[in-house]
Amino acid sequence: MNEALKQAKMAFEEGEIPVGAVVVSKNRIIGRGYNQTEKLQDVTAHAEMLAITSAANYLGSKYLAECRMYVTLEPCAMCAGALFWAQMGEVYFAAADSKRGFHQYNSHMLHPKTKVFSGILKEESETLVLDFFRKLRE
Amino acid sequence: MNEALKQAKMAFEEGEIPVGAVVVSKNRIIGRGYNQTEKLQDVTAHAEMLAITSAANYLGSKYLAECRMYVTLEPCAMCAGALFWAQMGEVYFAAADSKRGFHQYNSHMLHPKTKVFSGILKEESETLVLDFFRKLRE
Repeated sequence: MNEALKQAKMAFEEGEIPVGAVVVSKNRIIGRGYNQTEKLQDVTAHAEMLAITSAANYLGSKYLAECRMYVTLEPCAMCAGALFWAQMGEVYFAAADSKRGFHQYNSHMLHPKTKVFSGILKEESETLVLDFFRKLRE
Repeated sequence: MNEALKQAKMAFEEGEIPVGAVVVSKNRIIGRGYNQTEKLQDVTAHAEMLAITSAANYLGSKYLAECRMYVTLEPCAMCAGALFWAQMGEVYFAAADSKRGFHQYNSHMLHPKTKVFSGILKEESETLVLDFFRKLRE
């Protein structure tokens, strides 16, 4: 999750809502991503989406059942949908997103085989997002 | 919708589940996409996602509130999530997807301002998908 947080900090530095994600396979990072929706002017450029595409390219397979994703914020519905299709093995998210997190829509959006964990580096991830919006308002 | 169906037929010819989408702004097609998840080995390469990215690139804006999407199959949760973020003005889908369509998860996944219509070229779009899976089984 430290590596995902590093990705989130890169988003922060580039003026993007600071969310970062990594995909791990056999204890090795095979995909990284941070939110780039402003830079690319593309709503699909969420951290998770970029990390999934990157990991799938690395493996040459669209299925990531043997992988774990670490992401600093609870995935939105779009990203949960992508995690479903990829059949991601495990998803660890740091902070919950009480507004746009997928649990607000349906708790069963991930693949039935996907294991979900939350809370690691929760405070650091939340603080980063709060700092971003505080800075934005100033 | 005829143009979306043309995109779906291109997917069919390339051995992909035949779904196509176009984004229209001011009566002009500004984004096209057909399912390329097999070719790219990337679950995020759904027709709608590619068409959204393409339209946003064309406009230089991630918001597509003034646009309409025509898609041959009801969007899945991932694509509905992307349509939400893009604030797509109108969504027209041909065939319903009783298994993976976003209505199976939550009917309120699109942006509250998005208008949704369905049924245009429903039979042609359904037939194309059924033919694809029939051919696959043979």
